[in-house]
Amino acid sequence: MTRNDEPGAARPEAADPHLTESPLHGETVFHGRLLHVCRDTVRLPDGGEATREYVRHPGAVLVVGLLDDPDTGAGARVVVERQYRYPVRQVMLELPAGKIDPREPPWACAVRELAEETGYQARQWARAGLIHPCVGYSDEIIEIWFARHLTAGPARLDPGEFLDVGTASLAELDAALASGQLTDGKSVAALLWLHRLHRGEWHPDWQAAPVATLADEPHPPA
Amino acid sequence: MTRNDEPGAARPEAADPHLTESPLHGETVFHGRLLHVCRDTVRLPDGGEATREYVRHPGAVLVVGLLDDPDTGAGARVVVERQYRYPVRQVMLELPAGKIDPREPPWACAVRELAEETGYQARQWARAGLIHPCVGYSDEIIEIWFARHLTAGPARLDPGEFLDVGTASLAELDAALASGQLTDGKSVAALLWLHRLHRGEWHPDWQAAPVATLADEPHPPA
Repeated sequence: MTRNDEPGAARPEAADPHLTESPLHGETVFHGRLLHVCRDTVRLPDGGEATREYVRHPGAVLVVGLLDDPDTGAGARVVVERQYRYPVRQVMLELPAGKIDPREPPWACAVRELAEETGYQARQWARAGLIHPCVGYSDEIIEIWFARHLTAGPARLDPGEFLDVGTASLAELDAALASGQLTDGKSVAALLWLHRLHRGEWHPDWQAAPVATLADEPHPPA
Repeated sequence: MTRNDEPGAARPEAADPHLTESPLHGETVFHGRLLHVCRDTVRLPDGGEATREYVRHPGAVLVVGLLDDPDTGAGARVVVERQYRYPVRQVMLELPAGKIDPREPPWACAVRELAEETGYQARQWARAGLIHPCVGYSDEIIEIWFARHLTAGPARLDPGEFLDVGTASLAELDAALASGQLTDGKSVAALLWLHRLHRGEWHPDWQAAPVATLADEPHPPA
């Protein structure tokens, strides 16, 4: 192990042979309806071998839907959801999000998921960044997108999907974080981006919506 | 689906029969060395049935190790790591974290992981909150703990564990987030708590370290 106490320890551009693991061979050990689990044997930096088990995931997109002009400050509201999450056995306060379909660009997924889950359509979109929610055992990436100039419409939930749609201000989300009510990791990460926006530390590159309105398209059968 | 556009949509205290899923039966469908996957059949709110596949996880703890007094502002440094994460095939910038051992209290896990991974020991600790990193397919909970009054010492990594230890200021972490270098979900969530601390929005309930210094204890065999 290299100890590195000087400032700026993170150097993604550097080669890291003392850290990097190389795949030797692997297999899919569980192929479920939702989850696909791989088990790979890897070469460790010291020449040894180890086993790595992890979930393969298609990726997802989260949407911060701004209901007011972001310049209105901490009182501006965003679109939120309440959804029962069976793995954690509770109703979670979350921002809208969903899995990317095969060959679907992340931005198109953001537009689709916001419309399907909440009914809102946005005139402008900006990509904030991405998170890896679960680096220990999943390859999932969640892109964080912001949407503004929203128009309300009817939601079109997938079969077996049940959720409440509502709104919350930045101050309310902060209070929910402080009280332990907001614990969804991706939504907490998005809240940090929302703070950056409100503090003027992030200047979104707003773009017009990438696809025609979904309002007239039939909902594909599940 | 209930549509709920009034402010304050989140009401965790309310019963939510229109959202809640009930387990009917379940089984462990994959039992690996690291991952354990369950598949349950659930009763949906509308009376239908659905399948839920998810990872069972023992829980984890993340540590924000403050190297200076938090009142020194955004220049104060925290302990960071660079670690190759095989599922995402890259070296990640992260805050120290690790899985909870069987019957281990989260605070003891925080003390142990900080010492093992970074060598640091802290005189005072405070719990910030928790996140659910992956509500769609994992029951994992990550508690976020803050540590201060640190003393450096030798790290004692587990076999097959390789990482660099370093430090970063709040400003450097913000820059890493903005540039896309900081994408680890749990670390981004912890960064929001660090901002809350620096802005005076969170007043930690600092407590003396819960266990004797680990320096004299032998490292248990793996």
